[in-house]
Formats: sequence, C-alpha cells, structure tokens
Amino acid sequence: MPRLGDLGEHAWIATLLRRLPRAERRHGVLLGPGDDAAAVRLGARPVLLTTDCLVEGVHFRRGWLSPAALGRRAFGASASDVAAMGGEARFALLAVEAPAALPRAELDGVVRGFRAAAARAGARLVGGNLAGGRRVALTTTVVGTAPGRIVGRAGARPGDGLYVTGVLGASGCAVRALRAGRRVAWPSPPLRLRVGVALARVAHAMIDVSDGLAQDLAHLCRASRVGADVRLDDLPVAPVCRRALGARAARFAATAGEDYELLVAMPASAGARLGGLGCRLTRIGTVTAGAPRVRFLDAAGRPVTLAAGGFDHFRRR
Amino acid sequence: MPRLGDLGEHAWIATLLRRLPRAERRHGVLLGPGDDAAAVRLGARPVLLTTDCLVEGVHFRRGWLSPAALGRRAFGASASDVAAMGGEARFALLAVEAPAALPRAELDGVVRGFRAAAARAGARLVGGNLAGGRRVALTTTVVGTAPGRIVGRAGARPGDGLYVTGVLGASGCAVRALRAGRRVAWPSPPLRLRVGVALARVAHAMIDVSDGLAQDLAHLCRASRVGADVRLDDLPVAPVCRRALGARAARFAATAGEDYELLVAMPASAGARLGGLGCRLTRIGTVTAGAPRVRFLDAAGRPVTLAAGGFDHFRRR
Repeated sequence: MPRLGDLGEHAWIATLLRRLPRAERRHGVLLGPGDDAAAVRLGARPVLLTTDCLVEGVHFRRGWLSPAALGRRAFGASASDVAAMGGEARFALLAVEAPAALPRAELDGVVRGFRAAAARAGARLVGGNLAGGRRVALTTTVVGTAPGRIVGRAGARPGDGLYVTGVLGASGCAVRALRAGRRVAWPSPPLRLRVGVALARVAHAMIDVSDGLAQDLAHLCRASRVGADVRLDDLPVAPVCRRALGARAARFAATAGEDYELLVAMPASAGARLGGLGCRLTRIGTVTAGAPRVRFLDAAGRPVTLAAGGFDHFRRR
Repeated sequence: MPRLGDLGEHAWIATLLRRLPRAERRHGVLLGPGDDAAAVRLGARPVLLTTDCLVEGVHFRRGWLSPAALGRRAFGASASDVAAMGGEARFALLAVEAPAALPRAELDGVVRGFRAAAARAGARLVGGNLAGGRRVALTTTVVGTAPGRIVGRAGARPGDGLYVTGVLGASGCAVRALRAGRRVAWPSPPLRLRVGVALARVAHAMIDVSDGLAQDLAHLCRASRVGADVRLDDLPVAPVCRRALGARAARFAATAGEDYELLVAMPASAGARLGGLGCRLTRIGTVTAGAPRVRFLDAAGRPVTLAAGGFDHFRRR
C-alpha cells in the first residue's frame, strides 16, 4: 500500500487536486484548492483564504528562534500566500498545539510576535485554538481581501519577464548554519503584502517563494502551461548567502526555501507602470513557450542541473 | 517558570483574552477572540471564522475510527462553533500533519469524509495544507455567514430557560469503551447548523457542547454574568449511555465532552415560535441571577457535586 513518504507531499496534493473542483461558482468558490490561497465570494468582493502550518522538528527547532520570532514567522508564512494573490491580510486565526511542559511565557511570546506581525500587515488576530501535543505546531489561517485584481499561478505568457522581490537564500543560509549548531539570526518573512497589491496591477501570474524558487517556479509554469528560462547570475542572492557560499551561492539560493518573496510573471514593459515598490524587484528570466520546464542557465547560456532541492515534507527530512 | 500544564488550557486562554481586544470595529472585528467563532466584517454581512484541531493521541486514536469518520469529525467539530453562533458553514480549509509512513489511502479517506460532511452542511473544502509530523493532526478552519442574528455566549438573562439539542453522553461513552479496548461506533458530530440558525432567532446566548455540558455552561454563564440551575434528571441522556451506566448516566453525560450539541439560553415562551427543528430540544434548567455558578440539582432539588470533568488538554490526558 503506497505511503505518503513514497509519493511525496506535492504528488499527493496533485493527485487530490485532480479530484477536487477547481472552482464552483454556484457555491461561491471563485478559485478553489491549488493556488496560493482560495478565493471565495462573501458579499460583493472576493475573499482570500489560506492556511499554513509550522511544525517543530520539521520547519523549526525551538532553540533556533525566540518565541516572538516564531509567532512572526507563523503569521508571515501564511500571509505570504495572500500577498501572492495580490491580497491584503485582514484577519488571522492561530491554532496552537503545545506540550504541557511548555513554559507559559513562551506561548505568550508566540502570540505577541504573531499579533505584532499581523498588526504590521494591517491584520488582526481574531481567534484560535489551543490543543495538547507532543511538539509545538502552529497552524495559521489568514483571511484577506483583494483591493484590485486577484492574481493566481496560472496566466503567465511566453515572453513575460520573470521577477522576484527582495533577495533569496538568506533564510536557507540561516537554517544551514543553525542545523550545524551555529547561532545566527533567522530572518522573519518579509511581509510583501503591499508589494503584492502593487504587482497584481500588472502581473500575469504570481506565487510566493516558500518551497524554493526552482520548485515554486515549476508550480507556476505547470499552472500556466509555459516554460521558463532563469539566468543563475541574475538571481538577487542575499549578501549573507554570497559571503557564506561564494560561487555556489546562486545555486543554493535557487533551491533554498522559506524566502517568502514574490515571484512574478509580467510583461517587461510593465515595470514602468509600477512606481516605487519599497523593495527590490529583480528580473531573473523569461517565460518560454512549450513544456512546463524550468531551465537554469549559466553565464554562457548553458543549462545547469541543480541538485534536487526545495522543501517536500515527506521526501526530505 | 509556570508551564502550560500547571495553568491549564482554559486558564491560559482566559489570561490571554484579558489582553486581547474583544472587538475592534474600526478594523472590522465585530466579535474577537473568546466566543465560539469570531465575527468580522467583510462586505455587507458579518462573516464567522473559527479554527479547531484534532490531534492523534489527544483527541483520537487512529484505530478508533475510519479515516472517513475522522474527516467527518474534523469538519463537524469546527463547524459546530459556527452553528453555535447561528451561522451557516460556507467554506472550509483543512491543514493536515501526517507521518511519511501514513498509507496514502488513509489520507484520501480523511479528505473524502471531510468533504462529505462539509457538503452535507452546505460548505465547500477550498484549500488546505500538508505538513510532515510524527502524528496525525487535523486543523480545520470554517468560514461561515449568518443569515440572521449572530448569537454569542454573552446575553443569557435570569429566568431564561436552558435547552440542549439532541442527546448527551453518546460520544463520551464511546470513547470510554474504545479506551477500554472495546470496538464500538463513535458517533460523528451531528452538524447542528440549520438548527443553530433557527435557534438564533430566539436565543439570548448559545454555545456548543464540546468540552462537556458542565464546562461549556460555565463558559456561557461567565460570559453572560449569570448563574444556572440544571436538573440532572432532565438531561437528555443518550440511550447507549443510559444502558451502559444506569443510574450514573446523567452525571456522566453532564461532563462528557464532544457531543457537539447546542446549549441555548432563551425565554421559555420562545419555544412556540421555533417550529420544527428536526431534532430534539430539551429544557434542562434555568438561568439564575448572581454569581456565574452552575448548580446541578437532583430530583429533590438538592445540589449535586459532579466529579471534575470536561476536557482540558493540559489537565487531563
């Protein structure tokens, strides 16, 4: 009997999605499972719904970050999915599993960090749940609205430029150092909600970089039925990653996860209409026609094979 | 340093709630943390948001129920909080933690049961998440709307009758038998959404019976700043519970949890306006003035002390 581990997270989800309706407009579902967030009709404007989970021992170890940073991370990781649709985060729910031995001050810290990040993004913590568990696990639901267009993963067109906000690889580098026992700061998700709203005005497709650029770009390409060429040298590699990994930094940044930056496909001419985003936006490649294949190219334009990377809960632990 | 286990789930939540705003209307929060579900403004009508979690080894063991029954239970437990506000369930998200060794068919079964229960309640599964974990844990978010009044826990008035839907104790009896190694059917949550909408027309306060009647009635009394007298003999004890426990059945049913029935405070005269609910509605007692104390009375009207009961994740495992 096949087990989850044989199949992998993404393969199971893909199989499930084939059985689930993508949208059921008569039930108010504008965009169902399979994108960063669901879009549903509740009143006049669409509402975005998304849920995400951070599990101790899978996504983090408790010694790696303060309780407040863990709370910020829980909110930010989930809000990132709303940002990737062009939405504003409005309300959040936090379901906590925690062992009885957890110091109460730690849980207080988690909630404090969560609320602070939510407030910074313009959202409010409105409810939650607390359950016993052997390890700490935080499941966050973020409810958002879209002031303008909703942008999904599908819609990228051949010839579109591929762009990414901020820098890549800093979170992955921190995790690498933390795993090795070094004490380094693990950057919190950057909360690209305002940027996402601005990008949604011109984007053909958008996704957040949570499982690693290579994997998330592949998701976008599959949904859009296009390919992509990415120039490794053009990736906006985080300075900390460049310093730590030198010549290998770009390849690392291309598969390291949890940057929570936005990856956008849009006409190259659209940049002029964007105005000031308040963060870096770097062109990293081009959408191509044909099979949904992502090619990473070196300086000479030769395809480069990246080590299998990206986060899959059951493939790589 | 105090730990969660010293404090208990409900005491921690109570402390947290004192620090959180109960409502922030300028941010669209009509009713914030502390009730069965949050009520927020998204468009013209209020939206209800709630999240709940079932953890293997805490709320269930995998051998106790089929994967489909687990999925039904995950949806029903969370939807019950929407029912208790007088809401209709519209959309649901399901975040799963599961070990890599879990047979894929089991996860498929969970999703199948979840979707079936959601469809029966008029709701749609629109998104979710899958994460690795050592045990199975299901965190469900339900998004609802209220066709009429929203009814919270606060609002019960002295003289109100106390009523409960359906029967109590069947779920608790099943868990007792399952723990003892006997194979019995564990009833799924009854999905009282339509009943909740009907009761909301006349109810002063409402809550669902998830932690046990005694505990949930105490929540309602604290929120409403009233007391309650309940006649043990009037409890609608499930026949299976009556058969198993005889004379002790009513006391057991008063503290056994996970019935997911609705507990309502409303004027005794309101019953006539209700019409057919499609389920039993039993008067079990009366709201009293004064301290928020729940008294259980025997046939002679003498107060009865119940064994400490009700579910608290950190007090009783």
